[in-house]
Amino acid sequence: MEKTEENIEKINIETLQNMHPYDLSELFLKWDADERHVWMSRLSSQQLAEMFTYLEAEIALEFLNELDHDRQAQLIDLMEPDDARDLLSEMDEPDQEDILDKLESQDTISQLLSYDEDESGAHMTTDFVSLKPDMDVKAATKIVIARANEVETISRLFVVDEGGRFLGTVALKKLIKTKSPQSIQAIMEDYPSVLDTDPIEKTVHKMRDYSAFEMPVCNQAQILLGMIMMDDALDTYHEEATEDYEKLSALPEAQEEEHYARSALKRLPWLLILLVLSIPIAYITTFFEEVLVAVAVLAFFQPLILDAAGDVATQTLAVTLRILTKNPQKALKNGVKEVLTGVITGLIMGASAFVIAYFLARNMNSAQPLTLALVVGLSLWVTVIISPLLGVLIPVGIKKMGLDPAVASGPFITTLADLSSLLVFFGLATTMLGGV
Amino acid sequence: MEKTEENIEKINIETLQNMHPYDLSELFLKWDADERHVWMSRLSSQQLAEMFTYLEAEIALEFLNELDHDRQAQLIDLMEPDDARDLLSEMDEPDQEDILDKLESQDTISQLLSYDEDESGAHMTTDFVSLKPDMDVKAATKIVIARANEVETISRLFVVDEGGRFLGTVALKKLIKTKSPQSIQAIMEDYPSVLDTDPIEKTVHKMRDYSAFEMPVCNQAQILLGMIMMDDALDTYHEEATEDYEKLSALPEAQEEEHYARSALKRLPWLLILLVLSIPIAYITTFFEEVLVAVAVLAFFQPLILDAAGDVATQTLAVTLRILTKNPQKALKNGVKEVLTGVITGLIMGASAFVIAYFLARNMNSAQPLTLALVVGLSLWVTVIISPLLGVLIPVGIKKMGLDPAVASGPFITTLADLSSLLVFFGLATTMLGGV
Repeated sequence: MEKTEENIEKINIETLQNMHPYDLSELFLKWDADERHVWMSRLSSQQLAEMFTYLEAEIALEFLNELDHDRQAQLIDLMEPDDARDLLSEMDEPDQEDILDKLESQDTISQLLSYDEDESGAHMTTDFVSLKPDMDVKAATKIVIARANEVETISRLFVVDEGGRFLGTVALKKLIKTKSPQSIQAIMEDYPSVLDTDPIEKTVHKMRDYSAFEMPVCNQAQILLGMIMMDDALDTYHEEATEDYEKLSALPEAQEEEHYARSALKRLPWLLILLVLSIPIAYITTFFEEVLVAVAVLAFFQPLILDAAGDVATQTLAVTLRILTKNPQKALKNGVKEVLTGVITGLIMGASAFVIAYFLARNMNSAQPLTLALVVGLSLWVTVIISPLLGVLIPVGIKKMGLDPAVASGPFITTLADLSSLLVFFGLATTMLGGV
Repeated sequence: MEKTEENIEKINIETLQNMHPYDLSELFLKWDADERHVWMSRLSSQQLAEMFTYLEAEIALEFLNELDHDRQAQLIDLMEPDDARDLLSEMDEPDQEDILDKLESQDTISQLLSYDEDESGAHMTTDFVSLKPDMDVKAATKIVIARANEVETISRLFVVDEGGRFLGTVALKKLIKTKSPQSIQAIMEDYPSVLDTDPIEKTVHKMRDYSAFEMPVCNQAQILLGMIMMDDALDTYHEEATEDYEKLSALPEAQEEEHYARSALKRLPWLLILLVLSIPIAYITTFFEEVLVAVAVLAFFQPLILDAAGDVATQTLAVTLRILTKNPQKALKNGVKEVLTGVITGLIMGASAFVIAYFLARNMNSAQPLTLALVVGLSLWVTVIISPLLGVLIPVGIKKMGLDPAVASGPFITTLADLSSLLVFFGLATTMLGGV
């Protein structure tokens, strides 16, 4: 305790007050509970509220729980509605209800909580400056100045009609350069908008397309409900890219600075499932024991065919996962393209494998080097055509069933590609070399 | 030609004039050269210049080349400096020099062109409003209004001392709510900044951390040179995530709407290299022919061990690629963690494989089911420890050699993991079952 007090006295309160909330959040992460307690009582509510929005929701909740519910509600009321929603959505039901009841912004936050996590509505801020088309620019400027402190941005102002329907936007830069008398209508620009129920991924892609720092969110009736800011879009982009990436390597959600034993525990379930999936492979191939005993060198070409099938399947999966996120309806059409790509790459890879296998087989003094090489080349061609099918149909199928396509991770597809490749390889071998 | 004119007359010029530049760029992509020609002469230079910045640089250049150099220079002068730089950097040397000579903003663009593509300086806009700390807020507001049209944003204003050194920022929202007399110094906030030579990846991660819509860029002497806007950061983020993703699946850079034959041609080189890499695997394993002929069932457990090794190697590679982008100095330290993770996952996977192999081997009436199961389990454990080493050392080594770690793609690491696994598996089998 003494050490803590000493540490605290070393920090200048003024330094903290001028600090960027992100830097402050980094300090909070380093402090122990006693230090946090002292500073949470000394810093302004506004600064604390902002600091909390820079922490991950899970950690922010842990720190918030060191305060009573009234104080929690007070801080949450000072946050942007979307940040407040993020925190509340992570709380246990009783805590959430109790704190929600104490909030001034209760209605707004309840509205945001009614959206699913992946709907754009859940991520919008509902504080924005709206102007009417028939306003004069001078009156509009006054409104902007009056409301500047309550809203997240004034760079772009939103024009709505009497019914609250979104019409377009005015850039602040343009507004302040326009001389009165002039109506807002005259300087208004067309601007994209999204639906509150649109998937957030679709919205952030639209924001990137339009370089939109803020994206208006409307309901079906085109009533303006709020807007999504680009910093939230950047976060979503980051998470989405990370998810695709983790699916491709069957990695569980990664936490930095995680202990290796914990990493191991988190990765094990999938790795064990993949191991169990290998059993049918081992089991089914036993039916081909006869040909394998007769032509043992077949085993040496097994990795060559399995690797190629796995590589092609993973490439197709990578393309499919991306398309499923961005443009689901195109996934099947693209699948046809992937298979056609496989026909061509497979033909050339198969021909190359034929040559390689022929010389290796001769080198090993195999009985029928030409037939053996033909088995290898042909198997490779067929599997490089089948593998893309797996890489398309499985994730699309899983998604169609309403399940998370995360199950269709890279190693899972690779395992299935292995199974089909072995069947093709040993099947062809039995047919063409069986009598050896 | 007649069809073209008809099409053009159907489009209302006013509709085009009110259109968002992104939507206009989408139309340009659909039009043929004649239609483009007509509209490039009818639309305002400002609108055209903006539209060009929404096209990919390669395509923008193609369309720009339909105009003479004087007109090209005129349009480029109207673009933000970083957009102009992007276009010029893609031009052939003689074109670039000729157009650069015609630019009013020649000095600025030359300065930006002097940076490497991956340096933050290359992506900054050099137009920004700077204020002095001793200015009164009223004088500062006048400067902001006067310069609003020339700069990309006025949401955040940059405070510099007499020597141009960056001191902090003032939010416009705060500036317009502060009553005169009051100095800029008094309302200035601490704000992060980056160096012009900082890698752009590092900068965009910092922007995400700080939710910074604009990031000041300074030189070593802390002189403010420009700023990076969040929309450019979003693009960079997107490209970076895509690159990591493509490395993991050995996908060449993807183009949407690409013909399958072209996709096939682009993917073939790597796939063929991977095929050739399988030769040593086939070749080396021939040394173990003796044990394989004696214990043919070994071949059935081969995919099980190779798949597990490949999965673990890919997971480690995924983690390593991410760290190499974000935090290179931590890559090796993390490698140790990955290997320790392997020790644990391997132990449990090995034990599971032992049980599975024992029952399968008994089912197949193998001679020494217990020893065989021990070979399988032990091999799995060892390979799950070795594979992470490959997933760390190879990309880190390639990067240390100054080469692009893209060579260390997922399938490449998997192939190497296969090779080491086979050596372990057949090596152990020869030792423990050799005398069968």
